[in-house]
Formats: sequence, C-alpha cells, structure tokens
Amino acid sequence: MPDPASAQSALSSSVSLMERFQRIRAASESICAPLQIEDYVIQSMPDVSPPKWHLAHVSWFFEAFVLLPFLHGYRVLDEAYDHLFNSYYETHGQPFPRASRGLLSRPGVAEVYRYRQHIDAAMGELLARPPVEHAAEIARRVELGLQHEQQHQELLLMDILHILAQNPLRPAYRSDLRPGSGQLPDEPHWRDYPGGLQQIGHGGEGFAFDCETPRHRQFLEGFRLASRPVSCADYLAFISDGGYARPELWLADGWSLVQQAGWRAPLYWQRTDGRWLEMTLGGLHPLDLQAPVCHISFYEADAYARWAGARLPSEAEWEIAASDLPITGNFLENDHLHPVAAPQAAAMSQLYGDVWEWTASAYRPYPGFRPLPGSLGEYNGKFMCGQMVLRGGCCVTPQAHIRATYRNFFYPAMRWQFAGLRLAKEA
Amino acid sequence: MPDPASAQSALSSSVSLMERFQRIRAASESICAPLQIEDYVIQSMPDVSPPKWHLAHVSWFFEAFVLLPFLHGYRVLDEAYDHLFNSYYETHGQPFPRASRGLLSRPGVAEVYRYRQHIDAAMGELLARPPVEHAAEIARRVELGLQHEQQHQELLLMDILHILAQNPLRPAYRSDLRPGSGQLPDEPHWRDYPGGLQQIGHGGEGFAFDCETPRHRQFLEGFRLASRPVSCADYLAFISDGGYARPELWLADGWSLVQQAGWRAPLYWQRTDGRWLEMTLGGLHPLDLQAPVCHISFYEADAYARWAGARLPSEAEWEIAASDLPITGNFLENDHLHPVAAPQAAAMSQLYGDVWEWTASAYRPYPGFRPLPGSLGEYNGKFMCGQMVLRGGCCVTPQAHIRATYRNFFYPAMRWQFAGLRLAKEA
Amino acid sequence: MPDPASAQSALSSSVSLMERFQRIRAASESICAPLQIEDYVIQSMPDVSPPKWHLAHVSWFFEAFVLLPFLHGYRVLDEAYDHLFNSYYETHGQPFPRASRGLLSRPGVAEVYRYRQHIDAAMGELLARPPVEHAAEIARRVELGLQHEQQHQELLLMDILHILAQNPLRPAYRSDLRPGSGQLPDEPHWRDYPGGLQQIGHGGEGFAFDCETPRHRQFLEGFRLASRPVSCADYLAFISDGGYARPELWLADGWSLVQQAGWRAPLYWQRTDGRWLEMTLGGLHPLDLQAPVCHISFYEADAYARWAGARLPSEAEWEIAASDLPITGNFLENDHLHPVAAPQAAAMSQLYGDVWEWTASAYRPYPGFRPLPGSLGEYNGKFMCGQMVLRGGCCVTPQAHIRATYRNFFYPAMRWQFAGLRLAKEA
Amino acid sequence: MPDPASAQSALSSSVSLMERFQRIRAASESICAPLQIEDYVIQSMPDVSPPKWHLAHVSWFFEAFVLLPFLHGYRVLDEAYDHLFNSYYETHGQPFPRASRGLLSRPGVAEVYRYRQHIDAAMGELLARPPVEHAAEIARRVELGLQHEQQHQELLLMDILHILAQNPLRPAYRSDLRPGSGQLPDEPHWRDYPGGLQQIGHGGEGFAFDCETPRHRQFLEGFRLASRPVSCADYLAFISDGGYARPELWLADGWSLVQQAGWRAPLYWQRTDGRWLEMTLGGLHPLDLQAPVCHISFYEADAYARWAGARLPSEAEWEIAASDLPITGNFLENDHLHPVAAPQAAAMSQLYGDVWEWTASAYRPYPGFRPLPGSLGEYNGKFMCGQMVLRGGCCVTPQAHIRATYRNFFYPAMRWQFAGLRLAKEA
Ligand SMILES: [Fe+3]
Ligand SMILES: [Fe+3]
Ligand SMILES: [Fe+3]
Ligand SMILES: [Fe+3]
Repeated sequence: MPDPASAQSALSSSVSLMERFQRIRAASESICAPLQIEDYVIQSMPDVSPPKWHLAHVSWFFEAFVLLPFLHGYRVLDEAYDHLFNSYYETHGQPFPRASRGLLSRPGVAEVYRYRQHIDAAMGELLARPPVEHAAEIARRVELGLQHEQQHQELLLMDILHILAQNPLRPAYRSDLRPGSGQLPDEPHWRDYPGGLQQIGHGGEGFAFDCETPRHRQFLEGFRLASRPVSCADYLAFISDGGYARPELWLADGWSLVQQAGWRAPLYWQRTDGRWLEMTLGGLHPLDLQAPVCHISFYEADAYARWAGARLPSEAEWEIAASDLPITGNFLENDHLHPVAAPQAAAMSQLYGDVWEWTASAYRPYPGFRPLPGSLGEYNGKFMCGQMVLRGGCCVTPQAHIRATYRNFFYPAMRWQFAGLRLAKEA
Repeated sequence: MPDPASAQSALSSSVSLMERFQRIRAASESICAPLQIEDYVIQSMPDVSPPKWHLAHVSWFFEAFVLLPFLHGYRVLDEAYDHLFNSYYETHGQPFPRASRGLLSRPGVAEVYRYRQHIDAAMGELLARPPVEHAAEIARRVELGLQHEQQHQELLLMDILHILAQNPLRPAYRSDLRPGSGQLPDEPHWRDYPGGLQQIGHGGEGFAFDCETPRHRQFLEGFRLASRPVSCADYLAFISDGGYARPELWLADGWSLVQQAGWRAPLYWQRTDGRWLEMTLGGLHPLDLQAPVCHISFYEADAYARWAGARLPSEAEWEIAASDLPITGNFLENDHLHPVAAPQAAAMSQLYGDVWEWTASAYRPYPGFRPLPGSLGEYNGKFMCGQMVLRGGCCVTPQAHIRATYRNFFYPAMRWQFAGLRLAKEA
Repeated sequence: MPDPASAQSALSSSVSLMERFQRIRAASESICAPLQIEDYVIQSMPDVSPPKWHLAHVSWFFEAFVLLPFLHGYRVLDEAYDHLFNSYYETHGQPFPRASRGLLSRPGVAEVYRYRQHIDAAMGELLARPPVEHAAEIARRVELGLQHEQQHQELLLMDILHILAQNPLRPAYRSDLRPGSGQLPDEPHWRDYPGGLQQIGHGGEGFAFDCETPRHRQFLEGFRLASRPVSCADYLAFISDGGYARPELWLADGWSLVQQAGWRAPLYWQRTDGRWLEMTLGGLHPLDLQAPVCHISFYEADAYARWAGARLPSEAEWEIAASDLPITGNFLENDHLHPVAAPQAAAMSQLYGDVWEWTASAYRPYPGFRPLPGSLGEYNGKFMCGQMVLRGGCCVTPQAHIRATYRNFFYPAMRWQFAGLRLAKEA
Repeated sequence: MPDPASAQSALSSSVSLMERFQRIRAASESICAPLQIEDYVIQSMPDVSPPKWHLAHVSWFFEAFVLLPFLHGYRVLDEAYDHLFNSYYETHGQPFPRASRGLLSRPGVAEVYRYRQHIDAAMGELLARPPVEHAAEIARRVELGLQHEQQHQELLLMDILHILAQNPLRPAYRSDLRPGSGQLPDEPHWRDYPGGLQQIGHGGEGFAFDCETPRHRQFLEGFRLASRPVSCADYLAFISDGGYARPELWLADGWSLVQQAGWRAPLYWQRTDGRWLEMTLGGLHPLDLQAPVCHISFYEADAYARWAGARLPSEAEWEIAASDLPITGNFLENDHLHPVAAPQAAAMSQLYGDVWEWTASAYRPYPGFRPLPGSLGEYNGKFMCGQMVLRGGCCVTPQAHIRATYRNFFYPAMRWQFAGLRLAKEA
C-alpha cells in the first residue's frame, strides 16, 4: 500500500537518485578503464569473477529487481542474460554456476557495455517518470542496487589484483597510483573503552543493509583497542618468530591450512633475492613496512593476535569505538588502492579505510533480524553461517559506502580481500 | 605453587576420585562389550574413530597428562603409543593422522585392553599415594581425564552406530534395548522468558571445561521457547512440504550440500516399500514418530525453523531456560540409546537428554576466555571457529557429564551426533 | 658433421621452405580471424589451451629449437616467454603449468601477434641465409616446426569448439561454413584384406614424426573393414538399444566413466524438445544423421563395436588398408569443419578425413623406435603409455599433414577431438 | 549339448578335481592363519581388499557360477552375500562398491569361515555326484574357480603386506620366513634370441585364462634379454644417479606422478639413519641388495631401463624366451615370500618366480580373442585397456598357477604387487 507522502518524497529525491545512479554507474566503468579486453575475461579462482561479468551482473540486478517489475513494456536485450548474470538468487530463475563464469567469452566486452547502456537508458526512463504507486519501493530498490554496485566496485579491484597476480609477468593494473606517505608509524598505544550496556546496529535514517538491523542492546565488558592496525613491520616480526611454524598459535582449521596450502606469509608477499616484495594494483613493489598488513586470513589475524598476547575485537567493540569517529581515511577515492602508513600521533587511526579489520565475531543474524522480503532476502541472510565479520572498509571501498554499522563478511580462510587486523585486549 | 589446603582436600577426595576413575573406566568397557572384534577396527568416515582407538586414546590421555608428569618411574608399555593415540595435541609430540586411524589393525583389541590395564594399574598406584606437592593438579587433571573419557563414551556410541549403519546387513549393536514410551506428545506450546541482563557460563564450584568460562553478562531480549523438541512427525511434515527442495528455506552452504550430497531426510532414515525406517543402535526399526527428530545437521535444523516461522534459540537463551531445571532426562544410563517421546503435559520437556539441541550460536570464546595452560589448552580453544554450539546432552551422554553451562560443538554439516532442535521465537 | 651435398640441397629447398613457412604461419592466423579477442583467452578444461597461447607456443617452438641455437645474435622479445610458452619440454627450462594457461590475460592478443611477427622476421632472416654447416639440421627443424604448427591448427579448432560449446549462448565460430551433401550413405559393406607378413611405419622419403618409425614387419591375419565409418544414424540405434545402460558392452573403465560422468550421447549432442541437436563450429544444428558419428571416446567406440558384433581395427590393419589409397577427403581445406556423409557406392570411403578413427592399438613405440635427440625427443616418445592410436585425419586436419603412417593418439576417455570409428572383423 | 566322452572324462577327473579343490581351498586358509582377527578387516587403499573379503569372495565365486546353476536344491547361507561378495560382475546382480569393502565389520571372520564351510560342503556334494549332462561345464567352472582362488592367494599376501606396512609398528606377518641365499649375483649378461615369425598364446591342453588365447603368430626382430632381473643394488645406482630427479628418463605420466606422489624409491623402501630398509612380510629388514628389485611401478621400470640404455621386453619376447624353460623358481611354496638373489652362473635365471616382470606390452586382446560366454566373460576382457602386461609369477604366486603364456596385468602406476623388471635390447 503506497504511502502518498513517502511516494512524493521518493519522487523528489529521484532526481538526486538519478544523479547518484549515473555517477556510481560511471565509477564502475572508470575502474575498468585501465583493463585490456583480455583482463575482463579471466576467473582466477572460483571466488573471483571476470570483470566483464561484474559489469553485467550489477546491471542485471537493476533489470531483475527494478526494470522487469516496474518499467511497463521493458524489453530485455537478450533472454539468456537472466541466467548468465544471476549470481545466486535461487528464487529468481537459475543462477549460472559460479565457478564457470570464466568459461564465457561471450557476450564480449563490447556487448556487456551495450547491455549497460541498455539498462541505463531504461533506468533513466523509469527514474524520470516513476509510477507513483511504486515510487518508494523503486527508490528503495535503486538505492540497494547502487549500494550493490559499490560492493562490486570493491570486488572488481580485489579480483583484478588477483587475476594479475597469477601472471608471472606481474602486470600492473595502473602505473600511476599515488604513493602513500612513507613515515614510520608510532608504536601503537592502547585506548580504553568502558563497558556497559551498549547499542549497536543500524536504527536510524539512511541506507543500511538488512544484516545491520535491528539496532539492539549488547552488554560489553570494558576493553582496549590498539591505536592503529598491525603493520607489515609488526607482521614480519611474527614471521621471524616462527609464527607460521608454531601450532600452539593457531586455530586447528588454520593450522591444517597452513600445512596443506604452505602459507608462509600474506597472500601477495614474495621473497626474492632476500627482499620482501608485494604484488599490488600498481605492480610488484618492495613491501611497505609502515603500511598495515593486508591480505591475511582470519586464521592468520587470530594467530598473530595470540602471538602478540592480545585478541581480535568483537564487532560490537569495534562499532562502539568507531561510532563517534568521522568516516575519513584511505578509501577508493584517495586513489592509493593500497593501504598506507598511519598518521603519526593519532589517538585512534585507520578504523575506517586502508584495511578491513577482522573481528572475533561470527557473521550471524542480530537478535530480531528480518531479511528483505522476496528474492532480495537472499542478498545477505543466507550467508550467515561459517563466515566472520570484518569492519571499517578499505582502500578500495567507496567512501560513501561505509558506515560504523557496516558488516562485511568472509570465510576465515579467504585472503584476497584487503583485510588486516587491529589488536584488542580486556580492559 | 601448591596450596597445602587444597592439596589436603585433593588428597582426601582422591579416594572418591579413585572410585570414580574405576567406575568411569569400567563404563567405557561396558559400552564395548557387545562388539565383535571386527567392529573395533572400522573407521567409517574421517570423523569416526575405530572403537579400539577410542579405548586406547582415553588411556593415553592419562598417560600423557598425568602419569608421565607425575608418577615417578612410570614406564610406558610401548613407545609407539604416544604417537598412535595422540589425537590432536600438536604441542605434545606428533599426532597420528586422524583419517588414517582405520588403517591400524595393530595393536589389536586384546593389546588395547592390556594397555588399559597398564594405565589403570599405574593410575591406581598414583592415586593411592599422590605426591603432596602435585596432588591438586593431579586431581584436576584426573577429573579432566574422566570428563574426557565420558565424552568418548558418547563418541563411541555415535561411531558404533555410524559403523554399523554403513553395512547393508544393518546389524544391531544390541537387540535388548529398552523401548521408550509410545505416547503421542502434546502439541508444543510456547513458554515465555523475560529479557534483561543475564549471566551465563560456569562460575561456581564443580568441574567445567575451560570453554564454559568465564561466567559473564549478556543482554537478552525477551524470548519464547517451544515446550518440547521438534518430533519426527513434525519433521515429516517439513519433508512432505518440499522442505529439501526449496532453496529459500536454506542457508547457502546448506543448500549446496543438499544438492551435492543428495540429502532428503535425516541421516539414518530410509524409505523402504513406502515406510520410513530408521537405523538405530537397536538395528533397523520403523520410525518413531513421537520421538524427537535426530541426526540432522545445523543446516537442516535452521531450514526447519525457518519453514516453521520460528528460529533456533541462542545458547544464552537455552542456558537461561535450563539453568533452574533439574538435570533429568533420557541419558545413557536410561539405556534407550535412542530419543524417546516427550512426556505429556510437561511445561518444558527434554531440555536435557534425548537429543542435543542445535543453537543459533557460533562456538566462539566467551569474553575473557583463557584456555588451560600447556598442551591441555588445545583441548577446546583451538576449535572455536566454524562450529555451532549444541546444548543439553542426549540419550548417549552420561548423565553426570551434563550441566546447564555445557557447550558441545559440531560443524554445521555434521549429522552423526544425536542432534535435533527446539524452536524459539521473539517474545 | 654437415654433409655438403645435403646442405646444398637444404639450401636450395630453403626457398620453398620459406614459402611453406609463410603459408602455414598465415593459415594459423586465418583460423583465428573469426575470433573475438575474448575467445582467445579461455581455457575451458585442462586439455584445452587458450587460442592465443597456441599462437604464441608454436612461435616459441621456432624460437627455442631454431632461432636460439642457429640465428647468430637473435634477441628474444621477452625473457618470460620461454617459460610461458613452453608446453612440456622439461629438459628445456620450466614449462608453465598446463592447467593454468587460462589464467594469463597478458601478454594480450596484440602482443602475441607482435611476437609472431618478431619470430617470422627472425625466421625470414635465418632462412634467407642459413649457416651452411647447419643448413640441413635447420631445414629438419623448421619442417618439424611447421608440422607442429599444423597440429596446433587442428588443436585450435578443437579447442575453439570446446570453448564455444561451454557457453549457453552456443555461439557459432563461423556462420558461413559450407554444408556437406545430405545424401543417405549406403549400408556399409565389408571389404576383405588378406593376412600375411606386412610392413607398416614410415620408411621412405618425406617428413614423418619419429613415432612413425622405423618401418617394420608385422604379421596380420586376414581381416575385413567396413566400407565407411559408423554414422550418426547407426550410433542412434546403439543409443536406442540401451547402449549407455548395458555394462556388458563396456570396458570396465568406460563403464565407470559412463556412470560417473553421466554420458548418454557423444560429447556435443543434446536432446531438445525431442530433437537431437549437435553443437558444431557453425553453431547448434540439427544432427546430420548421414555424417560419421564424431566426438566419442575410445570407450564409446569400443562399446559400439561390441554391440555391433564387430571390433575396432588395429592400427596395422588400418594402415595396410589405407596405404594404397589417395589421400583425399574432407579436410580443413574443404572448409566444412564438420564430418559429412560418405559418397555413395564407394568401395572404401573416408579412411582419410572427416573423423579420426579410433583403433584397437595402444600407442606404444614401434620395435626399434628411437626418439629424436635432445629436447625434441620429448615431442612424442614420452606420451607412449596409456593412450590409444587414431588414424586418418579429420575435417579440421590440414590435408598435407596426413599420411598413411600417421599416428595420432589420445587417452581413451577423451572426446573433444574429432574422433569416430570404423568397424573391423576377422576375415 | 553335453559330449558323453568328455563328460565321462570329466566325471573321472572330478575325483582329482575334488582333491585339488580341497587342497587349494585349504591353502587360502593357511595363508590367513598367522593373521589376527583385526588384520582381516582393513582396506588400506581402494585396490586392497580386507582378507576376510577375499576369503568370502572366492567362495561366492563357486556359489554364483557353480552351485546356484548346477546344484539342485542349493540354499544360500545369507541372501545378502550375493551383493557383498560380488567383486565386479555387473551382469550378475549388483557388486558392492569396491572402495567400501573396508567398511564392513560383519559378517565377521568366524562367519566368513562358516560361509566357506557351507560352500565346501555343497561343492563336495556336487563334485561327488555331478549331473552327467553338465559335468564337463561344471569341471571347467570349478577349474576356473580354483585358478581364481589361487589368484586371490597372491592378492591376499600383497594386501596383507600393504595393510601391515601402513602401520608405524611395522608388524611382521610371520617372523619365521626362510631367508634366501645371500650370494652376490653375477653381473648379468645378454642372451640373444633370433627373430622371425613366432607363435605365442595358449593353444594346447590344460587350463588357461581366456585372455591367453588364441595362440597366434607374431613377427619378432631378433632381441636380447638380460640373464637376470635388475637387482636392488642395480636400482640403488639408478637412485644415486638422480633417477627420480631427471625428467628425461620418464614417461610424462610417470614424471607427473613422481612429483605429485613424491616417489623417491620403491614402495616399501625407507631410509632410516643412513641405511635402506625394506618392509616385507617378515617385517622391516635391511634391504637385500642381491635380490631383484620389487614393488616398482611400470613407470619406474621403464625409467630404469631408459637410464640403463636398454628397454623392457615385449610380452612376446618374454614368452618366446620362457617357453622352453622349466617352471621352477621362487614361488609361494618356497616360503620365502620375498624375492631372493639369483643363482650364480645361470644362463637365464628367474624368468619364473621372484618378481613379476613388467613388459613393454599394453594388455590388449590377442587377435581373434573371444571372452568366456555369460557373466564369466567379465573375468578378464573388460580390463583390456590402460594396463600393462607382466609375466612370470613371483614369490607369492602358487607355482602350479603359472605358465609361459600367463598374462598378468596392472595399471602402470601400481606398486603393491611384487613387480620388478628384466632388461631387453635389440639384437
Ligand atoms: Fe552481486
Ligand atoms: Fe579425545
Ligand atoms: Fe606443441
Ligand atoms: Fe576375484
């Protein structure tokens, strides 16, 4: 039942929604601009998607959930796309098998861009004259679609790095990235936070994913957080101290993986001629010791913390600490595309940006959680098992996409996301 | 630094400890009495251990953690056993690979029983005259060893069932089990529990595993629990309603598994000539519709709850509900070795016994958790990732082994433990 | 030690060699002309290589075995290529892992073509003025390199078909292929061949691979061969008669595969709305019942023959039958790129071209076989175990590449090559 | 249609058949006498069967192919056994999955022996009074059943060794085995054999498997064979010369396996404290340098031969060399159960016994091969792909089981059979 007032406000806000739509859609294409056509096609592991698939899938999202339900007379460009570009919405047709996305040379890159234009044109038409009775719902879904596309912007950069890193040529995605400051960060200090009955989760205005709701109470003991993330220099000390060879530091599943996969360092590190190098979006570079360590699994973060006599913060602790800080930091827009050293003498630095911070919390529903209705309920809820929460965004996250309540999640073995850690302790 | 008072109390209690030792050790052998020698040898999947391995491993536990450190002049029976019967204590020598336990015909069953006698004799000697300065620590470790052996008593029965169930002959472990009452349980009703700041975890006297500590505060919203677990009849309604064919009911990882493993019913159910049968420790029997459903994974429990318009309780909710109830129910000692129907007209039935109840909680450390020192710290802490908590014990758990604060844990895909579910809801 | 006479003849023939070089090199590029850039990148299974890899690898072959040893002052274009484009020559550096060829977006298609130009230029320089003392060896190796490139021309077309066939869009490689004649072939008749002491293998002038030598004696009993290959109509009768459901027709390994892989028809067949369709280089087409059946494994060929009360011919039988026939048939140059129906009333048709014919012979060395010296000895000899011989070439084989003595070989489970069968019987 | 004369001779020979039946059946049980019950249950890899399964399966063979068809009123002991003990006869019911044989604790060892008695009693009854019209067929099938049981006697010993070798305790099957002579064998010399048109295969009286027929002509070039098999000392020289690290010596599939499986020596060799030890049926012993090397794959045999500048003999060459030699050597009855050193100054030693000799020949049907009719046709024929022929029997083969025409076969990667090699060369 449409609420006329909110429909009206939706209508008026659809102007700015249109502008956001165009800006965010354009940003995806900017991210892909440095790619050669061949780069768009590769799937370097089952978790990675070919860049052209990302570009098409985020467009399909608008088609499936906005255009087909709400744009009268909308015609799809190709009937097969609803299968090819459905990621995992089982209640909406038949998703194409995830691990096979790299087998598709067609539709080619040019056709994918034509598909994007087709979607953009139709979206322009719809947003220009949204049917009044659905305007609010359309606005909600378009907003979700844009947030979704921003998530895929980060995924695009994660996947591009992974794709290029497989190549012995170690090609750079871009050779003009802006380097971070090279200053040595201070020794981290501990900042205390009082315990008590706290509230976390999204409860107010503005967009949030369903998994961030409802806002709810949680009792916390007092705790302490390190003033900056663990740096590469810190992490090298862990390696030098035999960190990867001491089972007592590891969770059992992590230790199995260390032995089986032969992990000896973060994902993109390599030791060549006695020097540590790191593969980045800017190509192969000497390791930046000042920068936060990145591309580690939950198991590695957890083992590091145990080695350091500390622990990972819970997501509630993280959120309490972050909730009154400005959302500034090293994000996608800063165009480093790599973590950079913390500023010196900061009270609490880099909670936002640089690296996602692994938390001690399993990704489970908040008390009273309700997924979105219909197929969009598959967006987050069905992944709430076996994964861990990460917080704060990273150097390839669009700044506007992040909130204190934002919950990112990955399986504990995954390393290709820009993930690091910050230490916590009992007060 | 030994505390003379506690050492004294430990000494005096070592008499009763000796009695408990003998009784619990004997119980393990009673469990194995119905086995043929061949049954002792089989490892039917990597998670299952051959019964003779269990019998030896629980003995090794006393050897490694009590006899070798504390019994002066103790001589091992065979040097190789420290390797063969170490389960997963990486900081204590080299564990024999878990998945290869079924490759060992030697030491044979008779030698394993001789090993048990060897251990029992040495333990008798130690417990008769424990060195005063270590008496408290010895008592603590013996208690842990006994609790450990009780856990393996349950594992023995789980594994025996799994072993015999692989066999097309469907052999019975025992043909003289005592059947449960066949009364139809009442329709479950909802019981309300108020919210507020609660305490959970072990904080008082008596034994508890490290993972149950520390006792700590947790804020809970008001909630409701069903007065009994989900029954087989209830679960059949889920199956009949297409439960295993509707992706919208499932977590993503669960749905993958349903398709890949072809799950269509709980683990030991089979449909033969139009009737549902269940493989039990008493052999293949018609399904007991009144009994709680058992041998389901977390994914199935979660999907059932979603289908029923409810959810799983958190472990805190479960513990609050259970904490003032007597620990009575269908346990190992009742000698059903299978869940039985709930009594009628009970306010809240079967929280303890019958089936472990899957909770919504990931198995993670409590705030302020500290593992035991030394190698015994590997007992629980290193498994705190990727698994879910189950509560309440089951029909093959020794009654004295269970507490309101007891945390059992399994990976969400596992089904060979006696696990079912109870529904919960927001108040 | 160079032989001046042969060096002279090599020199004079190097003119025509240059012409052949240019023609064959150009043919590879013509094959790729219809591809989109995206198509060049895909590796649809470990046995398939991305088309751009083929184009680079055949060039690398000239670099590694001709230019680097014999062209004074030759400079490689990129040092990394010797690793990336080495297929399996373990004694020549480190081959890039075969199954990972599809992970390389770079060097891109344009760079690969530049690499080809670089090689072609250097080869032009060398062939224009070959050093006299190495002229004969250069000529031999260039010839081998050209034969090698022709093999990869066939592989390119096999792989392109496999790549496009994974795509639900079923894209056509070319839409302008020349259809074959649609005439119904005659019922096959049996042609008799006398037994006796025969000679097979390459012994005379002209190029042959090392595996075709030495020419040697073999005793054959009298035998009979069918006058044409098994057609799709014939094969449908096998399917209709339950061919894929009757274990008594199958080799044990084949039967395992039928059950495990779910084979029910040749590789590219699909049944849609009650009609049999076949994916071809021309796209998805109704099955041509008159054409030889194609894309079957050895196991299927063997099972069909058993079902038909016949057997596969040995490679010696095939060679004796083929040795006095003209090498004409449906080859790459006919531009059908698909098997076509046999001409009517032929005494013995399609021994050459259309489909490779699986033989009953394991691919093993001939008596007295000697591989080529050096790394080139890895070309054929090390594959002489576990594979079966196929004979006669197919519709994507360059005509000039085929001989009566030519031995092709694949593992018995492989189906993506253009392979069919011809029946044989005892006389 | 029974032939009265052959029926008569079958009848009269059924007396001695009865004696052979009893003797061979008893031999299987003697082989198992040293086992503990636990040893009977283990399946140490999919190719290995639990000893109790062997004992039951060879009995089932008589039940399925002799008793059920020919003994009027025969009653099976247990209906389930026809499923459990069918190895691979797909046209006779449903074979129990091979890789799951080790999951069956029941029927236990005692029941399996009772099953043997049941079969023996029924066979006694049938052989005492065979129905005249089937006497010849019965005699043929009983003979096949006995040959089959002899094959499984060898398999029993292979499997027992493999089972015990998995155990870090390295238990001995028997500690009373008779050691071989310790004399250093002569350097091998080459013996010449003329070429020409030869005959191989079984053509005369006496039992042979279908795969040994028909006798047929084959043309051979002149060749040379080494006068004895390759010894452990010889093989150590290959290892010392980097044999396992030089790809140029290996077939491609073998080289892959060397790297993937980490092969560095024959299967049961281990290097401990600088000494080479070998696990044998007599337990862990210092390597016998004089004895033929044993437990190597075809790939290793082939690589050794290439390293030695020689090759493996074809099965025809082997058979020609063996056909006029007496069938004597180190067989099961010699009770070494391990290869022993060759006698000195022998013209041609150990063609029979000690180790099976890998040949260069793929296991394929002889020209004109016809498998046995009915389900027994599955005995050999369906395995004629992908495997290599071995000749001559070994130290765990019953002597009476071997012939010059006998064809054994294994996949080229298999090592748990007692297999070695003899070198061959062109004349
Ligand atoms: Fe998405
Ligand atoms: Fe344990
Ligand atoms: Fe090649
Ligand atoms: Fe058998």
